[in-house]
Amino acid sequence: MNIPTTSFPRVVIIGGGFAGITLVKGLRNLELQVVLIDKHNYHTFQPLLYQVATGGLEPDSIAFPIRKVIADLPNFYFRLAEVTNIDSKNDTIETTIGNLKYDYLVIATGSTTNYFGNTNIEKFSMAMKSVPQSLNLRSLIIENFEDALLTSNYEERNALMNFVIVGGGPTGVELAGALAEMKNEILPKDYPDLDIRKMQINLVQGGNCLLKGMSEIASKKAEDFLIKAGVSVWKNVKVTNYDGKIVSTATDLKFESATVIWAAGVKGAKINGLENECVIERVERFKVDEFNKVKGYKNIFAIGDIACMNTEQYPKGHPMMAQPAIQQGKQLAKNIIAIIENEPLKSFEYTDKGSMATIGRNKAVVDLKKVRFQGFFAWFVWMFVHLFSLIGFRNKAIVFLNWVYNYIRFDRETRLIIRPFKRKNKDSFSSQDL
Amino acid sequence: MNIPTTSFPRVVIIGGGFAGITLVKGLRNLELQVVLIDKHNYHTFQPLLYQVATGGLEPDSIAFPIRKVIADLPNFYFRLAEVTNIDSKNDTIETTIGNLKYDYLVIATGSTTNYFGNTNIEKFSMAMKSVPQSLNLRSLIIENFEDALLTSNYEERNALMNFVIVGGGPTGVELAGALAEMKNEILPKDYPDLDIRKMQINLVQGGNCLLKGMSEIASKKAEDFLIKAGVSVWKNVKVTNYDGKIVSTATDLKFESATVIWAAGVKGAKINGLENECVIERVERFKVDEFNKVKGYKNIFAIGDIACMNTEQYPKGHPMMAQPAIQQGKQLAKNIIAIIENEPLKSFEYTDKGSMATIGRNKAVVDLKKVRFQGFFAWFVWMFVHLFSLIGFRNKAIVFLNWVYNYIRFDRETRLIIRPFKRKNKDSFSSQDL
Repeated sequence: MNIPTTSFPRVVIIGGGFAGITLVKGLRNLELQVVLIDKHNYHTFQPLLYQVATGGLEPDSIAFPIRKVIADLPNFYFRLAEVTNIDSKNDTIETTIGNLKYDYLVIATGSTTNYFGNTNIEKFSMAMKSVPQSLNLRSLIIENFEDALLTSNYEERNALMNFVIVGGGPTGVELAGALAEMKNEILPKDYPDLDIRKMQINLVQGGNCLLKGMSEIASKKAEDFLIKAGVSVWKNVKVTNYDGKIVSTATDLKFESATVIWAAGVKGAKINGLENECVIERVERFKVDEFNKVKGYKNIFAIGDIACMNTEQYPKGHPMMAQPAIQQGKQLAKNIIAIIENEPLKSFEYTDKGSMATIGRNKAVVDLKKVRFQGFFAWFVWMFVHLFSLIGFRNKAIVFLNWVYNYIRFDRETRLIIRPFKRKNKDSFSSQDL
Repeated sequence: MNIPTTSFPRVVIIGGGFAGITLVKGLRNLELQVVLIDKHNYHTFQPLLYQVATGGLEPDSIAFPIRKVIADLPNFYFRLAEVTNIDSKNDTIETTIGNLKYDYLVIATGSTTNYFGNTNIEKFSMAMKSVPQSLNLRSLIIENFEDALLTSNYEERNALMNFVIVGGGPTGVELAGALAEMKNEILPKDYPDLDIRKMQINLVQGGNCLLKGMSEIASKKAEDFLIKAGVSVWKNVKVTNYDGKIVSTATDLKFESATVIWAAGVKGAKINGLENECVIERVERFKVDEFNKVKGYKNIFAIGDIACMNTEQYPKGHPMMAQPAIQQGKQLAKNIIAIIENEPLKSFEYTDKGSMATIGRNKAVVDLKKVRFQGFFAWFVWMFVHLFSLIGFRNKAIVFLNWVYNYIRFDRETRLIIRPFKRKNKDSFSSQDL
């Protein structure tokens, strides 16, 4: 891998998401060698992927070059690679570009879509966990309307205009809201010869409420907003299969749809090598102690979505979201410094800053610790928080400019099929394109 | 194709480039049905593709949704398709989504890369005529540096950092300048463990000057600027082959390079069906008369790069650039109106507004009709003209913001490998990805 060996201990961090990037920033100016490995050369701001998928933002605006984060930092290295195995006996990771010894290993690989073993759904539905996946979804949505124009078959046209989003969490809710805005504002202008009223947006949720984990009022208001925007919300409906044409559920209910977006679950993006001892079964996260140390190992840590720290308040681990990842990254940086300086480590304590979701123009729900609000002000807060969480001045400025433009003009200008998804992938249709 | 038949005559336009889009805009509010067909759902602002390839601009900023151009215009239709054949006997085009009758056909398909029959060069080199091609090039450039980090083989590393641009026209000159800026400003920060001084940028030109067609002073100054920026300019060197590793030339000169960008020629993007009678051999353009009517046909026109109008001043046809395309689009709109109103047609007269090329920060060359200038003011004019030629307010604003940011910060933030090119295409390496 061409990483020089120095007298400094080597910290290897796998993954440049919220957790990994925050950790890297916390390790500046220490007597350490830091190696960050990621399969992409950019950090992805996942909370805004749904806007890329619906043509509101350009993909490059929510991605940030990892090399820029570590530029000018001596003893920091980045390598573009996938880690294939952890050989903990020899303190070595195996990657697509060779092996690397570590003194401390931090697993920050995040999460991946969980299909709960349903290979059909995995094969035929779309996921939205990465920039390429979001671009594929963007292409597919537009291609479906282009195809709907061409067919004289009534059922086929309806299926092409029928969207099924499975999963009523923030991703599903925000995507449904953005699709509803496309339906109400963009598509009738773009496709005057299609009857866009026929477009269906179905949000299907297995449990009995949307935005599980948020307050009851947030959940109800979000549902209200969605229904008013024209989304059909299905609660207590379990999707059991999708064959590329028909979405089956546990009951008689069926959807004929050409586009199913699977946002019903995530699981740890685990790496082979450690699983026997410490993976917990349910969502493949690594069990960690209060210092984010992987159970049973002295020098291996896990932070963010991939880490499962069972605490009194979070017996199943912290929510798999940006905030715990960022906070664990910060805390682990401090603990690594403590290790080097032979100080005692400090337990991780999660501060729940609240959660929020937007449904569209002027509509969002926000739960803070002591106050909950919905509607215009919530939407404003949502925008403010997301804008300032983006890395880099350029990204903030470009996203802001796009939002202002889209708001004033009721528009989304990046509705471009830069790489045809459907046509090219007809024979090998798969959502697993990175 | 589901286009309704009306009592209005149907004008079918193939291609939404500069020529096609300008024509479409000129046909508003007439008793006509207008059908625009393109294989992309967006218009590409080709003069800035080189900035997408070198990480300065996001691809969506220089593309514009075609449907937005024709939104709210009754009797205007867009179809996403490739035209495979023209059946002029039956006034019908054949496309990937079915056949369509026309009353008037306008071919505005533009041009494509001309490899002059060299299949090796076609297979192994990169082209830069479309957004996907530019994104491929962007990925390849960055992937090469990531790979250069990993190899301990001296020759291999040099080859990965050795760039050969073939063709000294505006595309080659502007790309060479942008690569030189990457070398001088971005790459040393991104790759501190590589010796970026080893990076070679070779601009290889078959003729004895750069920017052929511009003034001698522009050509000389551009060469000066490039050489000062660190580009090796090779004149009177004919590239004869590239096998993926070695660029051979007509002399002993060879380049070991992993990245060859072929900007040495274009040819008409012709459609089958008419060629026997009217294609001229050299660069496969359709011969047209002074009204842009394809020779030998009554109701088929060609405009832009694909059209070859032999005039006294331009015996080999107008230059294959944006200006003639735009002007022909405008003129043909007027002539189509004249046809409908039974008025006499007006011959096309090309007004040469001059030409320009930029080499990088504060450096450009501009030839206007009566005045020529180079350096900072030329660069300013270049930016102004390109900014205001972009379609759409959003694109103008975003490109402007990016330029200001890049200028102040000496940066290019979109150096992202959104879709790995090399790794994915290793087995089927081809520049022909759309």
